[in-house]
Amino acid sequence: MMKKSFPLSRVYSLLEPGPVVIVTTSRKGQANIMTMSWQTMLEFEPPMVGCVISNQNYTFNILKTTKECVINIPTKELAKKVVSCGNTSGRKVDKFTTFQLTPAAASCVTAPLIAECYANLECKVVDTILVTKYNFFILEVLKAWIAPSVKHPRTIHHLGKGSFMVAGRTIKLPSKMK
Amino acid sequence: MMKKSFPLSRVYSLLEPGPVVIVTTSRKGQANIMTMSWQTMLEFEPPMVGCVISNQNYTFNILKTTKECVINIPTKELAKKVVSCGNTSGRKVDKFTTFQLTPAAASCVTAPLIAECYANLECKVVDTILVTKYNFFILEVLKAWIAPSVKHPRTIHHLGKGSFMVAGRTIKLPSKMK
Repeated sequence: MMKKSFPLSRVYSLLEPGPVVIVTTSRKGQANIMTMSWQTMLEFEPPMVGCVISNQNYTFNILKTTKECVINIPTKELAKKVVSCGNTSGRKVDKFTTFQLTPAAASCVTAPLIAECYANLECKVVDTILVTKYNFFILEVLKAWIAPSVKHPRTIHHLGKGSFMVAGRTIKLPSKMK
Repeated sequence: MMKKSFPLSRVYSLLEPGPVVIVTTSRKGQANIMTMSWQTMLEFEPPMVGCVISNQNYTFNILKTTKECVINIPTKELAKKVVSCGNTSGRKVDKFTTFQLTPAAASCVTAPLIAECYANLECKVVDTILVTKYNFFILEVLKAWIAPSVKHPRTIHHLGKGSFMVAGRTIKLPSKMK
């Protein structure tokens, strides 16, 4: 999927709607994938993101050590693969190969982008103060990519127990909010 | 809207999809309302929520002092009122009166529920370690309410600059996730 650079000041508009995302990490040449839903924006610019990654997950130690990841945002076409990534552990499975996802080189971090996702956010860990107590990582987005061909991304939103809401129509209201 | 108690173990399913929410607080008999989109689950049970409330907002000091709030989840029927709440400050306006929203008594906190919202989460602040640095409050949900009549809540999801995605259809996939 062809991507272009996306302004850092607009990154909040990708994460605020609450999509399920896929986090990629890399250590010693081995890339890993994790499905995630517990994240929030913390700051507009530079964009900061807070996210919970359980210490039960393979990604936890990799992120703690390498301090780099990519947040990839999938649409509903990828829903089955996203769930499969959530059902398996990178300790046992190379998820890129098993689920036929394509790694693409990032520009600021070693972790790969997932080519099939319509947006990718290259991140570094900037604060680990809440990692021990809440498994909560604070990230700064260094670089953002978006596929201009995807006008209305049908993101997926976790409702629990295998149910997902698919993004519906867009409405416009006279808001003073960013 | 008639409400029933909602299991605390299922609260994550209300917040994970990333809806715009309305936070209510109360101090000295004066209730206030704030629109919010920067929140995430932190723990399943007891349910813990992390959220950013800017120190520019009237709600910030009230929450810091009273350590209590309610997270109310609106659907698209309330979208205009939600945006109006975001466009005004409780310093100048009684938003319940101005926007014709109905306060209802909570059971564990002094802040009121918003009767028109399909779900309400009564919360207390349990950790303020990141309030100074990131305006990030850590809440525990003490009690949750839901309107059984609302089967497929059309929650709204902020895309920035007055655009909102409305929750679309639900798909089911064989997930091992909670």
